Amino acid sequence: MSDVWGENLKISIFGESHGAGIGVVIDGLPAGVALDMEHIRQEMLRRAPGNDEFSTPRKEADEVEILSGVYEGKTTGCALCGVIRNTDTRSKDYIECERKWRASSPAFDATGKEIALPAVGSRYKPHLLRPGHADFTAFVKYGGFADPRGGGHFSGRLTAPLVFAGAIAKQILRERNIEINARRIAPTDDEILVAKAEGDSIGGTIECVINGVPAGVGAPIFGSVESKISAMMFSVPAVKAIEFGAGIAFSGMRGSEANDEFFIENGKVSTKTNNNGGINGGISNGMPIVFRVTIKPTPSIAKPQNTVDIERMENTTIQIEGRHDPCIVPRAVVVIECAAALCMLDLMGGGGK
Amino acid sequence: MSDVWGENLKISIFGESHGAGIGVVIDGLPAGVALDMEHIRQEMLRRAPGNDEFSTPRKEADEVEILSGVYEGKTTGCALCGVIRNTDTRSKDYIECERKWRASSPAFDATGKEIALPAVGSRYKPHLLRPGHADFTAFVKYGGFADPRGGGHFSGRLTAPLVFAGAIAKQILRERNIEINARRIAPTDDEILVAKAEGDSIGGTIECVINGVPAGVGAPIFGSVESKISAMMFSVPAVKAIEFGAGIAFSGMRGSEANDEFFIENGKVSTKTNNNGGINGGISNGMPIVFRVTIKPTPSIAKPQNTVDIERMENTTIQIEGRHDPCIVPRAVVVIECAAALCMLDLMGGGGK
Amino acid sequence: MSDVWGENLKISIFGESHGAGIGVVIDGLPAGVALDMEHIRQEMLRRAPGNDEFSTPRKEADEVEILSGVYEGKTTGCALCGVIRNTDTRSKDYIECERKWRASSPAFDATGKEIALPAVGSRYKPHLLRPGHADFTAFVKYGGFADPRGGGHFSGRLTAPLVFAGAIAKQILRERNIEINARRIAPTDDEILVAKAEGDSIGGTIECVINGVPAGVGAPIFGSVESKISAMMFSVPAVKAIEFGAGIAFSGMRGSEANDEFFIENGKVSTKTNNNGGINGGISNGMPIVFRVTIKPTPSIAKPQNTVDIERMENTTIQIEGRHDPCIVPRAVVVIECAAALCMLDLMGGGGK
Amino acid sequence: MSDVWGENLKISIFGESHGAGIGVVIDGLPAGVALDMEHIRQEMLRRAPGNDEFSTPRKEADEVEILSGVYEGKTTGCALCGVIRNTDTRSKDYIECERKWRASSPAFDATGKEIALPAVGSRYKPHLLRPGHADFTAFVKYGGFADPRGGGHFSGRLTAPLVFAGAIAKQILRERNIEINARRIAPTDDEILVAKAEGDSIGGTIECVINGVPAGVGAPIFGSVESKISAMMFSVPAVKAIEFGAGIAFSGMRGSEANDEFFIENGKVSTKTNNNGGINGGISNGMPIVFRVTIKPTPSIAKPQNTVDIERMENTTIQIEGRHDPCIVPRAVVVIECAAALCMLDLMGGGGK
Repeated sequence: MSDVWGENLKISIFGESHGAGIGVVIDGLPAGVALDMEHIRQEMLRRAPGNDEFSTPRKEADEVEILSGVYEGKTTGCALCGVIRNTDTRSKDYIECERKWRASSPAFDATGKEIALPAVGSRYKPHLLRPGHADFTAFVKYGGFADPRGGGHFSGRLTAPLVFAGAIAKQILRERNIEINARRIAPTDDEILVAKAEGDSIGGTIECVINGVPAGVGAPIFGSVESKISAMMFSVPAVKAIEFGAGIAFSGMRGSEANDEFFIENGKVSTKTNNNGGINGGISNGMPIVFRVTIKPTPSIAKPQNTVDIERMENTTIQIEGRHDPCIVPRAVVVIECAAALCMLDLMGGGGK
Repeated sequence: MSDVWGENLKISIFGESHGAGIGVVIDGLPAGVALDMEHIRQEMLRRAPGNDEFSTPRKEADEVEILSGVYEGKTTGCALCGVIRNTDTRSKDYIECERKWRASSPAFDATGKEIALPAVGSRYKPHLLRPGHADFTAFVKYGGFADPRGGGHFSGRLTAPLVFAGAIAKQILRERNIEINARRIAPTDDEILVAKAEGDSIGGTIECVINGVPAGVGAPIFGSVESKISAMMFSVPAVKAIEFGAGIAFSGMRGSEANDEFFIENGKVSTKTNNNGGINGGISNGMPIVFRVTIKPTPSIAKPQNTVDIERMENTTIQIEGRHDPCIVPRAVVVIECAAALCMLDLMGGGGK
Repeated sequence: MSDVWGENLKISIFGESHGAGIGVVIDGLPAGVALDMEHIRQEMLRRAPGNDEFSTPRKEADEVEILSGVYEGKTTGCALCGVIRNTDTRSKDYIECERKWRASSPAFDATGKEIALPAVGSRYKPHLLRPGHADFTAFVKYGGFADPRGGGHFSGRLTAPLVFAGAIAKQILRERNIEINARRIAPTDDEILVAKAEGDSIGGTIECVINGVPAGVGAPIFGSVESKISAMMFSVPAVKAIEFGAGIAFSGMRGSEANDEFFIENGKVSTKTNNNGGINGGISNGMPIVFRVTIKPTPSIAKPQNTVDIERMENTTIQIEGRHDPCIVPRAVVVIECAAALCMLDLMGGGGK
Repeated sequence: MSDVWGENLKISIFGESHGAGIGVVIDGLPAGVALDMEHIRQEMLRRAPGNDEFSTPRKEADEVEILSGVYEGKTTGCALCGVIRNTDTRSKDYIECERKWRASSPAFDATGKEIALPAVGSRYKPHLLRPGHADFTAFVKYGGFADPRGGGHFSGRLTAPLVFAGAIAKQILRERNIEINARRIAPTDDEILVAKAEGDSIGGTIECVINGVPAGVGAPIFGSVESKISAMMFSVPAVKAIEFGAGIAFSGMRGSEANDEFFIENGKVSTKTNNNGGINGGISNGMPIVFRVTIKPTPSIAKPQNTVDIERMENTTIQIEGRHDPCIVPRAVVVIECAAALCMLDLMGGGGK
């Protein structure tokens, strides 16, 4: 199931980039949490585009309207729904792009078999597959019915409700002394600017550290902290790798180097090193939980690319116009933090009843 | 929840390393599959220890008895339970180890608070925490009640039922022309032997390629193929990193390099490169699905290590005796394949009704 | 979890009676369904109050705005969110009622222990427990933080999004020749009018028949059709009993009467009688699926009732003012149909991928 | 999914009546519970046949072997697997029955379409559909591959592992002062004996009362106590109706009669009547939880019945031989109690971590 997540906390995300609105329903929150709306707004702002020279100038208001689950400023314990209206959308760009290409040609599916399409002219459909995007896979999966405007449900814009939900989770965790901080490891500002100048994009790395998680959170086998966090991280568009603690550096490492030796300090069991990233046997050990994710380069680039016209079933080229981030990493930092917060809150029981 | 996995297919794994038996219940299999018992036996053998000089000489029979879900050699479509009896277990080793240490000292939890333990002498309990293992986290999570013998439920031995279940999944997928092959990338044989000679262990990397998956499997956001596979892979003990396609190499890569351009070949949409590892927007694109996992070094090493006596709450040292693989990677190859098979079968609907 | 339902189809319901809005997110719908908006509107109208002399004169617009999951009139296959704004709400009634009672008295929980309440005057809270309602249980569960206006999340108004979701499911099922029809068995119109005239309310029975379900839907044990339908029906406020086929009449019946004998007609296996209500061993047998639910009388009545002031922790009386249906059964008929449609679509795989 | 149940507690049931064994895996139990094996044995005995003149003389040992999840007599907190070997099974009866009928006739599915069957003689298959049983629905669902011996996975014998799991749940609940007691309401002993003497069977009613549940358990809408309990009860073979509190008597009842008025006693909120069966708005209110289930008559009767030969696709008659309970109600009492215990433990969080 694509849009529902969680065991103790249940998150349902909905929306398309250029539809009426996007949002999230959060079930399982504890009752009585006085929502820190300013904190939420700040987190939304960290994700919003148009903040610096790296991101698209599109100005998204990203105002979240809370429809339910909050009464007199406090969570009720029932499902909380937050909705973000889509305002500054330019589907006209897409429609014009479409108009150039649209023709009464027969259409074919991925295997070359002719398929019935909606009546010509009645439907806006992107038949030029953008490399690196989900245009082709969405076309196959949904039989041509997915909303194609701006990537539809596959758009990075869907991380906005994730940040909204995660910001609430972060607040709840902070009240339990759990802090989540992510930062950009790569690329540097200069590298992004060079990529941008060349009409290209660039990928990078984000590290996330979760402090304050007590020992004993998570479970063996399918309930591991790593399973929970990784499944969530790969739900964030463009994430293609994750490593915990020493991560890929464990390959070739010796056990004598890798093992985190235990010792007692202030009457508390701790480890000298943290190669395991705070997790043993799938369960937190009280050390900081540390992981890194790799973000692939934004697939939308100004350079011309070879591709396929999925309706005519012929090879062609595409040049993507419009506004696109040369590097998504700076804006993704808060997404990773908020996504991690949802994982930890869920692993710790959600808090609701 | 630690021991139940899956959406269309449901897997329940149970057992402890030195208990009466381990096994798995598989619900959601298609009816009428003539189980290839020789194939299953071969897969179990690939995982079994004692096959080469890298693995512990412990001879596990790993004979699976099927208790249900198969009638006249074919799956019934109802829950299939496979049980492996534990035979060659040496819990005596552990008991003697325990006997040396057991004393009427007070016990403390991870925060230094005194805790009630079972009456002295009545309970075998490992109070010397093995670095890199789950001894400490299991102690905290289960309040000292986990079966400590051989790692209990955290033992790598629990991958045996996973291989059994996965072998069935592999067979079903093969009948749909989907092939799963993993191989050791690192370390080399020589590196393992050197580590072994030094009483040490070594970590490594496994690459897995899944061929034949049609485009359209998986879903956006929480239903991504990467989410499903990664969650499963981090359920395999010792896995600490996963990367899809170009993986961590995406960091610093340009979009113009990273994007997999589409083209048409034999009336079928394909990509020239496969940097995305066969997955766009969380959905398979018809190219081989490719991922690599990092396996940390076996935590059990012959060298003495610093650690903590969790009962006395004092610093001490541990020297782990007994039989241990210097490198788990060779035996883990089949585990990764079988775990991947379960993911793909689940993603493709399981097959049952 | 209270607000998320389904296995193949996932439904997340949110909202409070007098909050900003109520709604539902539906995940797992098939792509390409041309929504019959007029059908949906008609179903919403059947549930809406103010249609006849039995129901409250409150005029609810119940206009559903679809925020996502529909593109050019057809489902996209991604999560569909429908929102209903709350307009004609009279929380002022509640606030005035509150004002009469509010005092700076200490508050106690259900066991008599004093509890901290929000600052006096800052919070509207109903301390007079309405008999038969969820006021008391919500108070205990959510620690006083539930939205109390109009029953909040417990209001029968929450069946509106259920009807919206179910109307879509009904349309999809109809296209597969599955028809769902419910009707009021009791009480009669006259009985309702008498109850109304006396300032009282009355309970009743609804029978639902599902035609066209092929044999083979459902599963043994936990996957039974009865389990799925009953769990859903008891999610509809005021439902207190359910029976399938002969139902409670099976008690005392002989096997020779109860068994539905098989016979062949037109090359198709059928049964002469349908005491089992179309279900054997939890699985549909091709006969009509038949069940009846009992709806308890509307708890809100004009007559004075004994109750408890939960803040003062003292016995008192309550007289409920405002608009209330003397019998909810007429409006509940469509709710039962729509709820049943969701069950059947879920049992039949949902239709999405 | 048919064989896995629960949210906080996960139960996986497996096995066929005449297969190698039946059993259950329970995940999510609290660690450190000293299992009362004598209590479990007594509960198993209450369900076992051969105890009185009403039940079949078949002597089932029903000895449960615990394979995992218990160490030194206490639960470990990891998955507990209990297995019951099938011993006194008479599949020979079935095979001889089969031998009489087996012939090289073509087979057809439910719609009259010819279907491929396993080679003649190679497979024991019951083509005479027993009225009231799941023979037909299992045949359609599993395409003829279900284990037919003794009802296979649909056998009432599968309630044995449910009792085992539920007995553990009952013990845990009892330690929290929650008591579950069910009793036969109908039929009387005399009625059962008359039915038996006539080669017939008879249905009945069981009432279950759960005392000691604190207020606040359960949730609105999909998480209602009634939803949870009813879904479980309809997983017990032969249950065809359930009612909570006044149940079907609510139909026609007035609100002024039905509402349970609140009052304070010993500083605790209570109700004078308990028409709502201890549940308001899906949540426990501290009063006893009361429900009744209707059990249909045992479908296996000695009298000849009309039926269909599913292979020959022709009308015929069947006379069921062998040992069968004239009334399943006496043995089902403990099943209802144990099933209810699993529901309550799950609703109260399971207890595990």
